[in-house]
Amino acid sequence: MLARGVCRHLRAHDFVTVEEFVPARGLRVDVMGLGPRDEIWVIECKSCRADFTGDRKWQGYLEWCDRYFWAVDRDFPAELLPEGTGLLLADGYDAEILRMGEERRLPAARRKVLMRKFARHAALRLQGLRDPGMLSAYRP
Amino acid sequence: MLARGVCRHLRAHDFVTVEEFVPARGLRVDVMGLGPRDEIWVIECKSCRADFTGDRKWQGYLEWCDRYFWAVDRDFPAELLPEGTGLLLADGYDAEILRMGEERRLPAARRKVLMRKFARHAALRLQGLRDPGMLSAYRP
Repeated sequence: MLARGVCRHLRAHDFVTVEEFVPARGLRVDVMGLGPRDEIWVIECKSCRADFTGDRKWQGYLEWCDRYFWAVDRDFPAELLPEGTGLLLADGYDAEILRMGEERRLPAARRKVLMRKFARHAALRLQGLRDPGMLSAYRP
Repeated sequence: MLARGVCRHLRAHDFVTVEEFVPARGLRVDVMGLGPRDEIWVIECKSCRADFTGDRKWQGYLEWCDRYFWAVDRDFPAELLPEGTGLLLADGYDAEILRMGEERRLPAARRKVLMRKFARHAALRLQGLRDPGMLSAYRP
């Protein structure tokens, strides 16, 4: 439910978003945001300390975005989170950006690949919701 | 309903699709397809002769795609359709490509713009379906 609040808030920054996006085989990010100037942000949602300390994959996401953020609720011990990463305070209804992630601009070729994947991901999920019969006819 | 069959069939060609896509102000295409090598196709659905003869806008769509197609059902008088345009025979469940539209490759800059618009369109519609409350919170 944090993801829903995050996605709503990113609209206020004119970002569009998808959830459970796969930037590369074996990786799956909670929220991928695409900004009005093609900025690509990754936001990982952490519900509690154990959820964060058990995460062995997040550093692998850094090379797939311009900025990386955590999204946590107000009970989360935010001092655990590494420097240089961004922070959103979120609930199921909205969020706010407390700290921007450091910018590390993606190479142009990778940005192009991610834009294509983002478009395909969003369109396939949309078609799956608009036309549930499609999934049995053609596997996405 | 022709659009649904068209979108299903394009999946068999590994295209993803959105409906009612706006490539530029004042234009709205029935189906925009994005192919595995970034091909951009426009498909206009025509239910009957009057629907086609009353269309004053379709030539304006040619410059926003690599290939242009009509989608019609089996009762449509296909001989009306101009040369050089593609043709899909469609119903609400599936479609088949009877004739490919002539290829006129988009300039790279326009393809990039369309890819971004496609991604934003699909992600916004998807978010609207997944989170209906979003629309009242933030206008897309």
